[in-house]
Amino acid sequence: MATSRDALIPQADRMFDGATHKLDVWSIFTPNNLPPDTLNLGQGFMNWAPPEWVREEQHRIMDTDVMSNHYSQTRGRPRLLKAISKQYSKTFGNLVKEGRELTMEEIVVTAGANCGTFAALVAHIQPGEEVIVIEPYFDQYFASIHFQGGKPVMVPLHPPTGSGEKTGADWTLDIEEFRAAFTSKTKAVIVNTPHNPTGKVFSRQELEEIAKICVEKKVLVLSDEVYDCLLYDGTKHVRIAELPGMWERTLTIASAGKSFACTGWRVGWVIGPPALCAATLAAHSRIVFCTNTPLQEAVAYALETETEHNFFADQLAAYTERRDILCGIFDEIGLSYTKPQGAYYLMVDFSPVKIPKDYAVPPTCQGRGEDFKKAWWLAQEIKVASIPISEFYAAEHANIGERFLRFSFCKDPPLLRAAGERLLKLKEYMK
Amino acid sequence: MATSRDALIPQADRMFDGATHKLDVWSIFTPNNLPPDTLNLGQGFMNWAPPEWVREEQHRIMDTDVMSNHYSQTRGRPRLLKAISKQYSKTFGNLVKEGRELTMEEIVVTAGANCGTFAALVAHIQPGEEVIVIEPYFDQYFASIHFQGGKPVMVPLHPPTGSGEKTGADWTLDIEEFRAAFTSKTKAVIVNTPHNPTGKVFSRQELEEIAKICVEKKVLVLSDEVYDCLLYDGTKHVRIAELPGMWERTLTIASAGKSFACTGWRVGWVIGPPALCAATLAAHSRIVFCTNTPLQEAVAYALETETEHNFFADQLAAYTERRDILCGIFDEIGLSYTKPQGAYYLMVDFSPVKIPKDYAVPPTCQGRGEDFKKAWWLAQEIKVASIPISEFYAAEHANIGERFLRFSFCKDPPLLRAAGERLLKLKEYMK
Repeated sequence: MATSRDALIPQADRMFDGATHKLDVWSIFTPNNLPPDTLNLGQGFMNWAPPEWVREEQHRIMDTDVMSNHYSQTRGRPRLLKAISKQYSKTFGNLVKEGRELTMEEIVVTAGANCGTFAALVAHIQPGEEVIVIEPYFDQYFASIHFQGGKPVMVPLHPPTGSGEKTGADWTLDIEEFRAAFTSKTKAVIVNTPHNPTGKVFSRQELEEIAKICVEKKVLVLSDEVYDCLLYDGTKHVRIAELPGMWERTLTIASAGKSFACTGWRVGWVIGPPALCAATLAAHSRIVFCTNTPLQEAVAYALETETEHNFFADQLAAYTERRDILCGIFDEIGLSYTKPQGAYYLMVDFSPVKIPKDYAVPPTCQGRGEDFKKAWWLAQEIKVASIPISEFYAAEHANIGERFLRFSFCKDPPLLRAAGERLLKLKEYMK
Repeated sequence: MATSRDALIPQADRMFDGATHKLDVWSIFTPNNLPPDTLNLGQGFMNWAPPEWVREEQHRIMDTDVMSNHYSQTRGRPRLLKAISKQYSKTFGNLVKEGRELTMEEIVVTAGANCGTFAALVAHIQPGEEVIVIEPYFDQYFASIHFQGGKPVMVPLHPPTGSGEKTGADWTLDIEEFRAAFTSKTKAVIVNTPHNPTGKVFSRQELEEIAKICVEKKVLVLSDEVYDCLLYDGTKHVRIAELPGMWERTLTIASAGKSFACTGWRVGWVIGPPALCAATLAAHSRIVFCTNTPLQEAVAYALETETEHNFFADQLAAYTERRDILCGIFDEIGLSYTKPQGAYYLMVDFSPVKIPKDYAVPPTCQGRGEDFKKAWWLAQEIKVASIPISEFYAAEHANIGERFLRFSFCKDPPLLRAAGERLLKLKEYMK
């Protein structure tokens, strides 16, 4: 302790995954670190802007309403809370059944879904408590749980087996493995559907099995549903909060960035019962005080008017086309992948790709999975950025993840096709 | 433990100041909770918008640069980092002496100064460690330290004594009391200059005394300097980071919201040596991932062009006028106050004001300082909002704070004058 204080060096156990000061995957595979002509299918941001009608409203409100430039109410701007209530109430089966809408006490606007998750963990997780996370997982969960002194406990999704087309549904949870992960210290479970990175959308039956155990074990559930408006081939999205016994113990997390192509606006929200929201709000208002005001106003307008612009429907059609372009590329190359039921990522099995054994990678990629090397090589040599999947697994299971690279298709067709032409060169490395 | 988990009720010790589930002062005295015709001199936001030229650039960049709508680099947008380096390097004596500018590794853009402070505490404070805070203090520090499992240790500023005009300089730190607060567990000290709520600007000599002890004790210093462009009567702002031995151990925290009248944009930054910034960045990128992008771009433009608009100079002249209007009002009423050397708050001694003994206040104000009752009464009966100061003191020293109410003068002259007319009625309650 004395040494680290003397040196004013941060404590590794609080800052990073273990003692090795590993840099997070997003900072390694960020465009600034890659060759400038790399085509970026790595991080999940769109290469288009949010709708013009939303931006116009943003400008109008900023110029005509002084208060749209100042502190928001900590819970969120009233207009946005109302818009969320109107849009989301009809998507929770339990609320529809009760014939009611979300109250303001059941919503908290957060500085992105990321900070919503972080605030919920600050509010509800005590040091020493355990949080069950399903692997592969969005890596931010892992660090956020550690920051509370909590312990992430991993339960794997099992990858598809056998040949033939595979979809997200072929990634399966062994419910007995899930049950076995609970201990007397288990405080919460994080569920993510549609799932990043597999594109799996948990079925009603799967969620009912998970829910039954969560009710029995009396735990909190954080349900990350930030891709809830991107569901392909008629896949139905079930919210775990709507299942019997779940509303009272679930916080559902959503994102404007994913819904309206504005990942840099940092507006998200958390939905749940008043007591759970109150604690999350108390934490969030200490962490960031409030979410930025002008972009909250714009998102409110986006939610209010998306139907008249047929926005979500058109967006889904466009994403379906993009997904199919990217799938077609890997079909042509001959690399197998999981066809996503939701979200905008493609998990591709890169184990047939052989890169030069002595290929040099920077220190940030050394001592990590084979996928870090392949992703680095792919960006440098093929000039296409992706995300290595071992980062979505705990260290002890990284070997499952290192077979895969994740490619984002939140990119327009010309970019996807250009990346496809480059990726065809992979055939030379699969002999 | 079993009970709180069963009930899924958040743990009071993590969420609130003590076991009483106290609501934070900002949520009590927020406009929505007060009569609609209340004139708001409470929370520190302006009743004017950020400059038109800044808003215009915000609109332009959002409409012409797709990436200004998407994830920022976690450290901040390169344009903003450059603008901060250019603007701030000349304000740190040590950098001027070295003839160099801040590098990108010495800056982290944060989701407001609030999240900058929170992230720095997450990065550097371990459970059980102590953080010395000077009272009265911005109450967010207290909760943020508690969230890390840290322990805030208070050292008071002593209020002015005797009669005659008092300035922020008359609030004094007893340096031996400060020294006595250190223990083997002390990890950090939070300094705030210009100081909220007293308006004190710490002199070079005071900061040198503080710095000497911080160097001797080898602690980290967080220096909250969010009001660094609001200094009255030629008062000089000294940055503690520029003093001998301090750069290596200090994180200086600044705010675009305070500098450019955009408190709801949630853009701030932290400046310090690379190792301290790296840890803060690692924490911040887990907490919120990144700061919102479009408003970072606008703030970059604001910093780049403020000189050609003579913005800070004109703003300071306008604030000086506002300060003098508010001081004049309390002169006329006959209530004593501390004339601010910096920031935009006036601390007024309300002990001569007697409100009806049986005046009913809501539960949120009960069991707290007399100042909460007076502030509630003032908002309801006189229709002027203020902030009670006992919230800026630890419970055991709340009696010092309950003499005072804080009035913000980040409000335009007509609003201040209208509030003044109402406040004149206080004379009837001072007999």
